[in-house]
Amino acid sequence: MKTLEVDLGERSYPIYIGQNLLAQAELFLPYFDSTQVMVITNETIAPLYLEQFLSALSKQQTQAVILPDGEKYKTLEVTNRIFSALLEQRFDRKATLVALGGGVVGDMTGFAAACYQRGIAFIQVPTTLLAQVDSSVGGKTGVNHLLGKNMIGAFYQPRCVLADTETLNTLEDRQLSAGIAEVIKYGLIVDYEFLVWLEQNMEALMARDHQALMFAIERSCMNKATVVAQDEKESGKRALLNLGHTFGHAIETGMGYGELLHGEAIAIGMVMAADLSQRQGWICPADKDRIVQLLQRANLPVEPPKSLSAEKFLELMAVDKKVMAGQLRLVLLQALGQAVVTANFDSVMLKQTLQWHA
Amino acid sequence: MKTLEVDLGERSYPIYIGQNLLAQAELFLPYFDSTQVMVITNETIAPLYLEQFLSALSKQQTQAVILPDGEKYKTLEVTNRIFSALLEQRFDRKATLVALGGGVVGDMTGFAAACYQRGIAFIQVPTTLLAQVDSSVGGKTGVNHLLGKNMIGAFYQPRCVLADTETLNTLEDRQLSAGIAEVIKYGLIVDYEFLVWLEQNMEALMARDHQALMFAIERSCMNKATVVAQDEKESGKRALLNLGHTFGHAIETGMGYGELLHGEAIAIGMVMAADLSQRQGWICPADKDRIVQLLQRANLPVEPPKSLSAEKFLELMAVDKKVMAGQLRLVLLQALGQAVVTANFDSVMLKQTLQWHA
Repeated sequence: MKTLEVDLGERSYPIYIGQNLLAQAELFLPYFDSTQVMVITNETIAPLYLEQFLSALSKQQTQAVILPDGEKYKTLEVTNRIFSALLEQRFDRKATLVALGGGVVGDMTGFAAACYQRGIAFIQVPTTLLAQVDSSVGGKTGVNHLLGKNMIGAFYQPRCVLADTETLNTLEDRQLSAGIAEVIKYGLIVDYEFLVWLEQNMEALMARDHQALMFAIERSCMNKATVVAQDEKESGKRALLNLGHTFGHAIETGMGYGELLHGEAIAIGMVMAADLSQRQGWICPADKDRIVQLLQRANLPVEPPKSLSAEKFLELMAVDKKVMAGQLRLVLLQALGQAVVTANFDSVMLKQTLQWHA
Repeated sequence: MKTLEVDLGERSYPIYIGQNLLAQAELFLPYFDSTQVMVITNETIAPLYLEQFLSALSKQQTQAVILPDGEKYKTLEVTNRIFSALLEQRFDRKATLVALGGGVVGDMTGFAAACYQRGIAFIQVPTTLLAQVDSSVGGKTGVNHLLGKNMIGAFYQPRCVLADTETLNTLEDRQLSAGIAEVIKYGLIVDYEFLVWLEQNMEALMARDHQALMFAIERSCMNKATVVAQDEKESGKRALLNLGHTFGHAIETGMGYGELLHGEAIAIGMVMAADLSQRQGWICPADKDRIVQLLQRANLPVEPPKSLSAEKFLELMAVDKKVMAGQLRLVLLQALGQAVVTANFDSVMLKQTLQWHA
């Protein structure tokens, strides 16, 4: 097992990365404030891991809420079901919420923990690669609104994170690939050495080799933690983590949540960011090709949906959280392993990138 | 005009107390991060003050959301209307929310500000005495759930507070009294000298004398700020501010929100706390009588509703946020001007207090 400490002063917490962590109650029991524990999970994960996890918690006054699975359920309304369950059980402000599932469960559970009685403890047990490398670090919690993704939320840190690579054995291939998209992102934005490692080890990752997965999760979380620790509230550097996200969110919103997985939309978004970076002359065509090839080896899509026009893209991108005073800012690449947040790009070239298929 | 600085480190902010502050844009303009300003108010306040306030903001890109008036609208669902309005206007994370109204508007707007894009600026313009002396300090924001009051929320501080005594001229008599209940509370819990001042100046307050109101608002906010600064996250001393609230919330929930004003329920709750304190032998009957008389001079109710049985009371009180590991804690009086949070009371005497009418 590897342990990574996320350094946030009094809100610091550990990420445990390894096999079979779900059964090791001694890892997480120290983080509960009382015996009131509510596990939030979904219909896909519950049959696979809920019983095992609850049995490790046998001495707690444990309850479980099983939500429907999918990004479209990441709403205020569904979050309210968690509040109802907590209130029906008379859980007080010493209660602990456990998020057992992917990013949707983690984001929503973290937000519920931030808001219930104005803040209770929570623990993250991410069961997808995407959640293990993304939601584990950064304290972003929240839900979607019909008019925009992740528009309602809070910055709220977990007490600890358990990234159990064993849970990745049951992950659908498509979900594994979506997680690898975010892993590749860390290489692209700040860690060229890791990008090279990924080019050399993509087969091992796709084959779910536990050593390779543990390394990739640890390195991704380290990279994210370094960026986040420098900028906890996302005023500057943290925005680098959104490489591919402005394009990707537009694709997700434009196609309706659920058509593409988040990681798949981000993969396309990263290719679009690389495309615009190349048009700007910041990276060479060979760099862009390396990105496309690496994503393709992870079975990820690399072209935007034909159904989205450049106009629709621009409209959807205007709602992005990185828009400042009406000006669109994008995360682009100045080199492989070196991203930058900038509003300083050519709008004609942006349209060319958006009109990919035209 | 008086200015009171609430000292919370980097989240410190000023409370301005005086007449005609709404028209003084120079007071609040410095607190906006951009020209995107959304005023949240309600159907009662909008016809009285919205136009005046908006005209002071003429250079801003100002929008207004007018919500229905009443505690029963303090819900997640209504908060979602604020999110929708912000997203429809494409307001970004530099936008500012202004709460123009009573406690309901303030609590809900503050919560919306805490959650929109994970936190945007907000300014409080409380237009009721209750909101001026209560919501102005402490950073508590939130909404009700069907199963309990204020169960969903966040600690979130405003950029500044404008307490304009001019807005109290249009306040209904019953609302003025409800505010005075909270003012009396500060005297009872920590400020005997202020309690004596209130006994001497109740007629001036009831006649809406501006000097008396300004003094009462300032002294109340000072007392609250002192308590809150010692204990921002409510682990200990802050709970004193809940004198009368465990009983009062049970009354509000039991009767359905909207039957009694919050301040009226708290007035009854304070008499019940005094009654139990007297049964415990902590205060003498004359002390309890002084409390009852002062509340009566403010036209406040002093007896619990006959419709609530002791059993129902206990059931409702069990959901209270001050319950720790199943044990009920109450704020009781050890003397006038000296409250204490305790689980150390006689349960038979509690039942006697709850069976007041039996």
